Amino acid sequence: MRENRQRILRAAHDLFRQHGVDAVTMEEIADQADVARGTVFNHFPNKENLCLEMGSLQVDMLVEAIAQGRIPGPTPTEKVDQAFRLMAELPQANPDNYRLMLVRVLTAMQPGVLPEHRRRLLIVLERWVAEAQAAGELRADLAPGRLARYLMGLQLQASLIWAFGFVEGTLADHISRQFRLSLEGIQGVTRSAIAPAGTAQNPDHGTGTNEKGETGWQ
Amino acid sequence: MRENRQRILRAAHDLFRQHGVDAVTMEEIADQADVARGTVFNHFPNKENLCLEMGSLQVDMLVEAIAQGRIPGPTPTEKVDQAFRLMAELPQANPDNYRLMLVRVLTAMQPGVLPEHRRRLLIVLERWVAEAQAAGELRADLAPGRLARYLMGLQLQASLIWAFGFVEGTLADHISRQFRLSLEGIQGVTRSAIAPAGTAQNPDHGTGTNEKGETGWQ
Repeated sequence: MRENRQRILRAAHDLFRQHGVDAVTMEEIADQADVARGTVFNHFPNKENLCLEMGSLQVDMLVEAIAQGRIPGPTPTEKVDQAFRLMAELPQANPDNYRLMLVRVLTAMQPGVLPEHRRRLLIVLERWVAEAQAAGELRADLAPGRLARYLMGLQLQASLIWAFGFVEGTLADHISRQFRLSLEGIQGVTRSAIAPAGTAQNPDHGTGTNEKGETGWQ
Repeated sequence: MRENRQRILRAAHDLFRQHGVDAVTMEEIADQADVARGTVFNHFPNKENLCLEMGSLQVDMLVEAIAQGRIPGPTPTEKVDQAFRLMAELPQANPDNYRLMLVRVLTAMQPGVLPEHRRRLLIVLERWVAEAQAAGELRADLAPGRLARYLMGLQLQASLIWAFGFVEGTLADHISRQFRLSLEGIQGVTRSAIAPAGTAQNPDHGTGTNEKGETGWQ
């Protein structure tokens, strides 16, 4: 079952890449995957659903790369960067196509239901985030899940904006730059000068101070 | 012309909010706006286009609020936060509807063409960013336009993830939290321990060091 599913996704991916999402039929996907047409529809009721599950190819690639030692790190923070770069390979093969798929994904997505492959990615990221927090690489005042979701959001945003042609260069470089910016933060050196104490509203910040001991702004 | 356009957008917004994007026809929008049907089609060839331009209502609200002194600051960084909070009001009125509109917007958007209202927002943000950089509130090693785009991306991502039901609470609070996180950065105190110098790949970081004088990681 799992094997058929993978084969259908790979066939669809190759066909979409060659001919574009809109031009390919479910029948052609069945032929290319060498499975019965009914098998395709058993796994994926429609093309939107197929696009939605295409992200699992990316996560499979990542899980395989981890198993084969191709996400060397050495630090957990660098592993996150390497993972994002690796996952950028599929979209990079055909930006236009990726954009059309993204739109179909968002059309098909049920509100509040995180697709299974995004949940798998979240688990991987959460583990690295916890390791990075233990090593002092990432701030430890927020839950690993909260930071992992922040990073997933960053990846989604970077992919979307890149796919819509608003960024020059590769997606891998763009995600890497945005990730670095999210690590370092965008505030300036004299930040403390504008931070009136005791008015922090952010429930995530237990202490109301950041890692530099300054109070949160506002 | 400008006035008709505004009237049509407001009528569409009210109808979408009451009945949902899918249920409302262009004819009903014309009736509600009290303009000829042809006038609607002159301004907006289809519903996707109407949804795309709906964002200009948000930017109009912001421009009006600035003119009326309702974005008090006092610092430029706080103005950005107040602007994002204000712009969250429209989506918050009906999350489901906002999600459907977002999907239609992404369907209608031409790659590489920033919608006019997003360009207007970018100009406002860029001015505040430049002021914040001059005041030492925001890092000055990146161009104002680069940081303004980073913030617009943050807003898009926060709105999208909220509209898809992955965040509890209001959009205004969510955007505010994400904005604060982007200011402070997510790295930990002992970050420098994992930063091998001299291998920075990021072309945006002229010096290879961040505001704390540490070298960028990787």
